[in-house]
Amino acid sequence: MAGNSFGEVFKISTFGESHGKAIGVLIDGCPAGLPLSIEDIQLELDRRKPGQSHITTARIEKDQVQILSGVFEGQTLGTPIALLIENEDQESKDYSHLKNAFRPSHADFTYQEKYGIRDYRGGGRASARETATRVAAGAVAKKLNSSLTKLSVQAFVSSIANIHLEKNYQELDLNTTENNLVRCPDEETAKQMIRIIETAKAEGDSLGGVITCVIKDCPIGLGEPVFDKLEAQLARAMLSIPAVKGFEIGSGFEGTKMKGSEHNDVFEARNDRIVTKTNNSGGIQGGISNGMDIYFRVAFKPTATIMQKQQSVDAAKNEIALEAKGRHDPCVLPRAVPIVEAMVSLVLADYILISRLSKI
Amino acid sequence: MAGNSFGEVFKISTFGESHGKAIGVLIDGCPAGLPLSIEDIQLELDRRKPGQSHITTARIEKDQVQILSGVFEGQTLGTPIALLIENEDQESKDYSHLKNAFRPSHADFTYQEKYGIRDYRGGGRASARETATRVAAGAVAKKLNSSLTKLSVQAFVSSIANIHLEKNYQELDLNTTENNLVRCPDEETAKQMIRIIETAKAEGDSLGGVITCVIKDCPIGLGEPVFDKLEAQLARAMLSIPAVKGFEIGSGFEGTKMKGSEHNDVFEARNDRIVTKTNNSGGIQGGISNGMDIYFRVAFKPTATIMQKQQSVDAAKNEIALEAKGRHDPCVLPRAVPIVEAMVSLVLADYILISRLSKI
Amino acid sequence: MAGNSFGEVFKISTFGESHGKAIGVLIDGCPAGLPLSIEDIQLELDRRKPGQSHITTARIEKDQVQILSGVFEGQTLGTPIALLIENEDQESKDYSHLKNAFRPSHADFTYQEKYGIRDYRGGGRASARETATRVAAGAVAKKLNSSLTKLSVQAFVSSIANIHLEKNYQELDLNTTENNLVRCPDEETAKQMIRIIETAKAEGDSLGGVITCVIKDCPIGLGEPVFDKLEAQLARAMLSIPAVKGFEIGSGFEGTKMKGSEHNDVFEARNDRIVTKTNNSGGIQGGISNGMDIYFRVAFKPTATIMQKQQSVDAAKNEIALEAKGRHDPCVLPRAVPIVEAMVSLVLADYILISRLSKI
Amino acid sequence: MAGNSFGEVFKISTFGESHGKAIGVLIDGCPAGLPLSIEDIQLELDRRKPGQSHITTARIEKDQVQILSGVFEGQTLGTPIALLIENEDQESKDYSHLKNAFRPSHADFTYQEKYGIRDYRGGGRASARETATRVAAGAVAKKLNSSLTKLSVQAFVSSIANIHLEKNYQELDLNTTENNLVRCPDEETAKQMIRIIETAKAEGDSLGGVITCVIKDCPIGLGEPVFDKLEAQLARAMLSIPAVKGFEIGSGFEGTKMKGSEHNDVFEARNDRIVTKTNNSGGIQGGISNGMDIYFRVAFKPTATIMQKQQSVDAAKNEIALEAKGRHDPCVLPRAVPIVEAMVSLVLADYILISRLSKI
Repeated sequence: MAGNSFGEVFKISTFGESHGKAIGVLIDGCPAGLPLSIEDIQLELDRRKPGQSHITTARIEKDQVQILSGVFEGQTLGTPIALLIENEDQESKDYSHLKNAFRPSHADFTYQEKYGIRDYRGGGRASARETATRVAAGAVAKKLNSSLTKLSVQAFVSSIANIHLEKNYQELDLNTTENNLVRCPDEETAKQMIRIIETAKAEGDSLGGVITCVIKDCPIGLGEPVFDKLEAQLARAMLSIPAVKGFEIGSGFEGTKMKGSEHNDVFEARNDRIVTKTNNSGGIQGGISNGMDIYFRVAFKPTATIMQKQQSVDAAKNEIALEAKGRHDPCVLPRAVPIVEAMVSLVLADYILISRLSKI
Repeated sequence: MAGNSFGEVFKISTFGESHGKAIGVLIDGCPAGLPLSIEDIQLELDRRKPGQSHITTARIEKDQVQILSGVFEGQTLGTPIALLIENEDQESKDYSHLKNAFRPSHADFTYQEKYGIRDYRGGGRASARETATRVAAGAVAKKLNSSLTKLSVQAFVSSIANIHLEKNYQELDLNTTENNLVRCPDEETAKQMIRIIETAKAEGDSLGGVITCVIKDCPIGLGEPVFDKLEAQLARAMLSIPAVKGFEIGSGFEGTKMKGSEHNDVFEARNDRIVTKTNNSGGIQGGISNGMDIYFRVAFKPTATIMQKQQSVDAAKNEIALEAKGRHDPCVLPRAVPIVEAMVSLVLADYILISRLSKI
Repeated sequence: MAGNSFGEVFKISTFGESHGKAIGVLIDGCPAGLPLSIEDIQLELDRRKPGQSHITTARIEKDQVQILSGVFEGQTLGTPIALLIENEDQESKDYSHLKNAFRPSHADFTYQEKYGIRDYRGGGRASARETATRVAAGAVAKKLNSSLTKLSVQAFVSSIANIHLEKNYQELDLNTTENNLVRCPDEETAKQMIRIIETAKAEGDSLGGVITCVIKDCPIGLGEPVFDKLEAQLARAMLSIPAVKGFEIGSGFEGTKMKGSEHNDVFEARNDRIVTKTNNSGGIQGGISNGMDIYFRVAFKPTATIMQKQQSVDAAKNEIALEAKGRHDPCVLPRAVPIVEAMVSLVLADYILISRLSKI
Repeated sequence: MAGNSFGEVFKISTFGESHGKAIGVLIDGCPAGLPLSIEDIQLELDRRKPGQSHITTARIEKDQVQILSGVFEGQTLGTPIALLIENEDQESKDYSHLKNAFRPSHADFTYQEKYGIRDYRGGGRASARETATRVAAGAVAKKLNSSLTKLSVQAFVSSIANIHLEKNYQELDLNTTENNLVRCPDEETAKQMIRIIETAKAEGDSLGGVITCVIKDCPIGLGEPVFDKLEAQLARAMLSIPAVKGFEIGSGFEGTKMKGSEHNDVFEARNDRIVTKTNNSGGIQGGISNGMDIYFRVAFKPTATIMQKQQSVDAAKNEIALEAKGRHDPCVLPRAVPIVEAMVSLVLADYILISRLSKI
């Protein structure tokens, strides 16, 4: 209820402030008998960690994960899995200038109003640093999903500002996404994207963009009726990621311009399976996966932290001028790719387990 | 977990198949002492009910609501409020031709696969008829919200297929939304929308579109960190509505093209309140309402039921031809306006109550 | 959270005031494909209904149950099952004398303080009438349990006031429990119990007692670690029944006088199964069923409603004298037997489904 | 659902195996603005920790708690509070002899059956070591309760085996409970209890007993109707503690022998408050606190671990002989006193916050 948990059966609860002692996640409901190692988790964390390249923040956090419980002799026990990441440079910096200041488009003001107190160091709980714990938990979900199904989750950057990847996902080799710094599976577009990020960085500004995600080989029957439709939980998962402002699945906003006779996905039998000829539904009907590809797009606004002087007010309603110090991501999208995948893996792990309950 | 509940404190659980005995909703967690009458609820149901005009379905359901519990001498008791709507024409029609057929872009196939059984009459549980129970519950949430705050929730149709309402919401008088059949607060645009719906109806086809929703005078501090950000639950709520394929809030997908220096909402003090000069954030920062208008857009695909012959397969994987009988909505958007408002009211009621728990 | 729901996967939510329009229960999470009929449920309700014999209340309620949803062609759909029981004599009586009065050992005072309002007719939500909805839901749970396992749940009256059934459960034929009015599987003891209930009734007084419950052939592995131990949820379930003041399982309070060397249940292999020689644990170890019989005792205080003049105060703190009118149960235990069984069946149904989630 | 969480608003989730890296607890839902220090928590942990005296286990664990998140500048932030206790002697001992052995009356067999894998070192997750995390969380709950109400929770040992404290709680000075090793607020009885524990220890045997708990000055209105009655959650909380086999509140099992006319608690006005003349109800009516003292008794069986040779079987169903090594508690009751208080504080903290939601 307080917002820090996600999932019903495969349930995660995250904790930690950006500059507190540590951040972490408790996974409750992972079945016993899943092979799991530190490396499984660290691999995903390394994809998200800061300081990867010249187009991400220069902040250095090793983000070394520890497994405190729930794993024994290389397998899950069915008991809670606690994962811990210590904050390394927690006390290294002076944040007192932010004590009473409200940074534009940050959560400083709303947290202060809601709680009457906030940890003003680096955004505290509202910092995007918490997404590291999602990635750690997502790695466990991913492991579970691949042990129980054949599904794959692949996200990639499809727009940065006005640079759009014009091809649709079927024309791309999604296994090449990791080949460039910006995580766009098209070398030409990737180069252009990197260039405008470099420019924004030089100007002390920031950029937004769009991430596309594709789930292939999803089992039929995931998702629940009415309020927990698969697309509803995917939307919630995506909009819970910092900086996300939009979500569309299948035909999305463009599909609103089609007629029913064009949009309907006609069923046919192919290789003894029932499939649809088109896939405007995006692999989900009535909230439940139908076995076709699930694909959706996620809109990220430009990062709020910029290296320019900005006007604002403080808690006493005085006008102030703010200037960001230190390091920032001019564009979060490359690092957001593993976050999107992690959240999607968490949604799917939960529904895979829940689907064990639907029939007698 | 089975998908039929929504909310944590103000919690609703809906039930009922389209052609079963009744549909209904149980509201648990509504505080005691709220004045509540049948009329409060019936009023909203009448806005949603079928057969309102020539551009909606001709199916006649009076959708008369009964309060079975939880209200005594005109006030809520703090105990569960059970609302019941009997299905009137439940046994009137022969649905046996749909017993083994999978209608395109309907939930027939996915429900059959998931449960191994389904109520094939009119879509059963997957029918949009269940949204009547959301509207009934939403009416109670609306009553609660207005007794505890000054907020208003106003949705309207902003696009039908290619007809777009070009003005933004500040230029419109949202109190005129109910003045026309299509629920668009601009008479000229409304007329065009009605015309293309009439055409689609004549062709036995269907149309989609976009609904915009605006929350004004929302208290500061609604929403929870990390996974239960206000926009995350709004997105989930919207994507849980049948036929919805997209959601964007504040600057949305367009905002991904802006720079951070343009997008950031600078704070200022105005009339002793802290406000933002612009509102690209859409009234939410760090997942928590900041007191500015909350506005978002919801994409609806064209209705799956059309009055044309369509190809499909049956459960035995034989090819079949389907032809819809009877009555349908050529465009659900006008009737979806109260559904959107209901879901938003439910999200807000929940967060208003939850906000009582954040400080000592 | 508001107290009206029970269970995590097989989840029930009850509603209704004693003299409102109806009482009912919503069952969410019952798997699809379970054969279920009205008779399955009515049978259990008839065991609990008032007016069964001269030693129970003379109030007549037929307690006819309706299935409003979730069942189609004799099988569950996997969607919510709504069960409704209309209150027949809802407006038949004048309760205005109780509007401001607080009956001793009833919930009038605490509900008034908690909610600031209460339905004072017959106890409203706090009336034991709500247990009918538990019995209805329990009948569905029982059906599920017997379709998935071989377990049996058998409760019986083992004490009324100072009349105790001296034999332990292994010496009794639990199939004879229904053979007498008091539901005690020993004819001699039953006769004595009936006699003292008749005396109490004649005196306008009431009696309490103890119900014993035995679960046989319970699958190994039900229950969850730490907070959701099987005995913990059984205890909660029992203490949630009106008038219950105590619960003990296995060796219970007497076992506190034993030494560890006497109390420990030694394992042995018998017929290729691992069993324990003794069963002081009562079939549960570490919160999880071990396959041995589960047995426990439940203490019921004497009914609060008595046919004698009693002192009390009203809401204005004036002294008043109260005299119960009409009909009451001089001893609730015979009718509580099916309630105990229903709650136990609900606990087990939930854990049977949850046990599908423990291994990969 | 997996059993590791407790509470709805003030929600705790514990983790950790006895001989893993660490144990800990995540508290989500503690309101912002509560003053909280390490000392507040350590104080309670020190009351529970092993090695306190010659009548408890000789195992040495410092049980030093760390606060990883949720507290800033001495106050709670409203974000999750993660508490960590490292296991010091985690790898110090050889447990391989227990790998396939099932110790009598321990959870070895049931965990193995349920999960197909278990951490066999010192009981793993099923070890009573997990109660340290309950005590840590309970200390935070206690702090919250005393900042919001005047209530006190006081538990004490009232029986060890056949030595019973004959006085009832009103005749005792509960502030003297900590004055002796056995936590019995009567010096004479305490001495006898210590003596029989010493004897049991010398014999390599163990003893059980009863803890009584009293809640004074509890606000009126805590508890929820039907399934979440205050006594129902107290019973669940108590039965979730390792070794607990019984719970009785107010008049308990003895009260089943009274007549209604004797048992009913008559209301009267005293000092402008409504109180009851007697208190057989134990401070709760209709599941909701009425402002009178809440008192209950909890039965603990003798500890399963004894220093004597015992028969058992292993996973392959071979007969084996087991001999406990090292250190054990001959009687857990003295150390269980702070555990009982912690669990009660957690139940109350949750209901205190939930009570903010009952009225408009």
